[in-house]
Amino acid sequence: MTKKILMVIIDGVPDRPVNGVTPLSSAHTPNMDRIAEAGINGIMDTIAPGIRPGSDTGHLALLGYDPYEYYSGRGPIEAAGAGIEIQPGDVAFRINFGTVDGEGSIFDKTVKDRRAGRISDTDELVNAINENVHLDVDFIFRRGSGHRGALVFRGEGLSDKITDTDPKEIGKKVKKCKPLSEEGRLTAEIINSFMEQTHEVLDKHPYNLEREKKGLLKGNAILLRGAGVVPHIPPFEEKFGMKLAVISGTTLIKGIGKFLKGDVITPEGATGGKDTDINAKVDAAIKALKTHDFVLLHFKAPDEFGHDGDFEGKKKYIEKLDSFLERILNLNFSDNLLILTADHSTPVTAQEHTADPVPVAVVYKDVRVDSVNNFSEFEAYRGGLCRIRGIDLLNISLDLIDRAKKFGA
Amino acid sequence: MTKKILMVIIDGVPDRPVNGVTPLSSAHTPNMDRIAEAGINGIMDTIAPGIRPGSDTGHLALLGYDPYEYYSGRGPIEAAGAGIEIQPGDVAFRINFGTVDGEGSIFDKTVKDRRAGRISDTDELVNAINENVHLDVDFIFRRGSGHRGALVFRGEGLSDKITDTDPKEIGKKVKKCKPLSEEGRLTAEIINSFMEQTHEVLDKHPYNLEREKKGLLKGNAILLRGAGVVPHIPPFEEKFGMKLAVISGTTLIKGIGKFLKGDVITPEGATGGKDTDINAKVDAAIKALKTHDFVLLHFKAPDEFGHDGDFEGKKKYIEKLDSFLERILNLNFSDNLLILTADHSTPVTAQEHTADPVPVAVVYKDVRVDSVNNFSEFEAYRGGLCRIRGIDLLNISLDLIDRAKKFGA
Repeated sequence: MTKKILMVIIDGVPDRPVNGVTPLSSAHTPNMDRIAEAGINGIMDTIAPGIRPGSDTGHLALLGYDPYEYYSGRGPIEAAGAGIEIQPGDVAFRINFGTVDGEGSIFDKTVKDRRAGRISDTDELVNAINENVHLDVDFIFRRGSGHRGALVFRGEGLSDKITDTDPKEIGKKVKKCKPLSEEGRLTAEIINSFMEQTHEVLDKHPYNLEREKKGLLKGNAILLRGAGVVPHIPPFEEKFGMKLAVISGTTLIKGIGKFLKGDVITPEGATGGKDTDINAKVDAAIKALKTHDFVLLHFKAPDEFGHDGDFEGKKKYIEKLDSFLERILNLNFSDNLLILTADHSTPVTAQEHTADPVPVAVVYKDVRVDSVNNFSEFEAYRGGLCRIRGIDLLNISLDLIDRAKKFGA
Repeated sequence: MTKKILMVIIDGVPDRPVNGVTPLSSAHTPNMDRIAEAGINGIMDTIAPGIRPGSDTGHLALLGYDPYEYYSGRGPIEAAGAGIEIQPGDVAFRINFGTVDGEGSIFDKTVKDRRAGRISDTDELVNAINENVHLDVDFIFRRGSGHRGALVFRGEGLSDKITDTDPKEIGKKVKKCKPLSEEGRLTAEIINSFMEQTHEVLDKHPYNLEREKKGLLKGNAILLRGAGVVPHIPPFEEKFGMKLAVISGTTLIKGIGKFLKGDVITPEGATGGKDTDINAKVDAAIKALKTHDFVLLHFKAPDEFGHDGDFEGKKKYIEKLDSFLERILNLNFSDNLLILTADHSTPVTAQEHTADPVPVAVVYKDVRVDSVNNFSEFEAYRGGLCRIRGIDLLNISLDLIDRAKKFGA
């Protein structure tokens, strides 16, 4: 029987101490503690000591992809998440629908709102762009949630060595795309033409004129950022011989799943936020273990509480989450290897991602169980894994379930 | 408020056990122990496990510079330390004034003394060389302390792929400089011309004739070693956005400070030896924290006791040093991050640098304090840092004081 892996990632759950305790260390978490007790524990630098991970780079490393090799910016991941079948060499962007006003060309106009009054029904505008904008290369333009979207350019000689057109500040002029080196010149020209043509199409589009009449802001500019050239990235199944399922309600993590050609599962009620249906996600994960070899179960909320600086909220949410993890402890650890960890710390004091190492616990019939019996920042480092790196975790797990290949004879 | 870092480096302080104890573990060090107790601890391979660090490569790593990338020999560091404004591409050497005798060219003569009778007032000789030696490239020649000095060649096509001219043994002939590969040919020719011309200038120089009359050895040869091409090295402030101060009385460490374009501070009484004024250096460090962002406070003597194989002397010096560290414990650890560590071990049994990992303690309001309460080789590994590398220490510290950048989104 083939062994499976369930990796539970609690986004940003580790913290720095406040009066000697953290939300995680002070929360009542009998199930997480049972996981620590049953397993081998350690601390982990998701990327490297002192390097602050993004959720995207952190997840790539935990899934066995060196982000220094495979990460080229958020654009490609957002594009994959938006359902675009990205190809190596594509140049991808995150985009916002924004509102600009003023006279002259789009680059003479100023940004009135970077979200076009939180415009949400952008289908007609997206279609109009796809039909009426013509460039020297192909492009694929997809809407995302709300005012967001993804944009991909495809053709010969494209480069991500260019600047954003999103000024990222209200009242500033739309930025002309500039090449950062000679190889970006063609791409910058194409993007500037895209900026001009889309503005022309959008500014007088009936849907926008309708919005204007209602006193709403027009979505009359596309603001580009996060340029990245799509790397040659082997699909997860090809690289590791395991069928991947990603259970998440978070756009960026879903993007990672699609980027690696995994199956992305968002059960009803999974919102990617504090109000997500935890039980539905645990259900989905246990079910996915029947059809997939590697299941990543992602919970976003603790990261949000960290960004909000909400110690008590984070602690309570951890306790709530813990209560749903009991069912995972009922898995058969002869056939399934369980990993409980985080992609990075999001301390309530820092209110942003930090590089403080994350606790990691691995449960499986064959692990060298250590004396750690508490899942926290203050216990994990005493465990049998000592201090490892994110990129090593998948290999360690594949080795344990006897899916690793020998190097040498 | 910008947070600052004070890194206290006790050169060579860790040891190997003798009857189960070391100078550090058996010394009464209440202040170092309070630092361990207040902080997060670990052991550290300054370069990599099993790699014996020099004081120069060790310090480079602790300052966040990979020595495999930025270290090309001692010459460039000595030259920087001697006040030469080195430039990338320069080829730099350590030099000694030596005494040679015999007939024929300098390469037929033998070395009578590698230190020219510990000649010390070399100013006139250095001037004579700078005025009367003419090469196809520029050179910069500066005296150092005693018989020492630094020499830099600057011009097109220079290389450090050449041999030393210092035979490093009395009674041997001065060595002709040889290219180690084709690219070193030109440089070797220039150096051999330098050797011949300097000998001619020095051997009949009035100052040397005067010495001869007094029965002193002539400083009539320049012996070259430690060739290194100066790398493209970003200044510390540019690389890390922090203004660097190095408090040291040791030439090599001062050289490191200048190599990275930091401010080198040697308070009165700081000798770089066992008789240094510890209090003056602690004073200088605390003062430098007002004007600089990163202060390296270096103590050399324990390394010397290690080289001397003097267990009791090392132990007593550690106790003396400890008593002066109390003032550092009065720093405000909300605004200042303190690191206490070493650049390498210098065990009294080995009497040289070894790769035994060094203890490291980091004190700051936000660290995950562990249960280690003793600064020693036998306790540090139980701490929350586990085992790290020297190159990671600065990144870990920058992350803690929120000066780190995120990789990804």
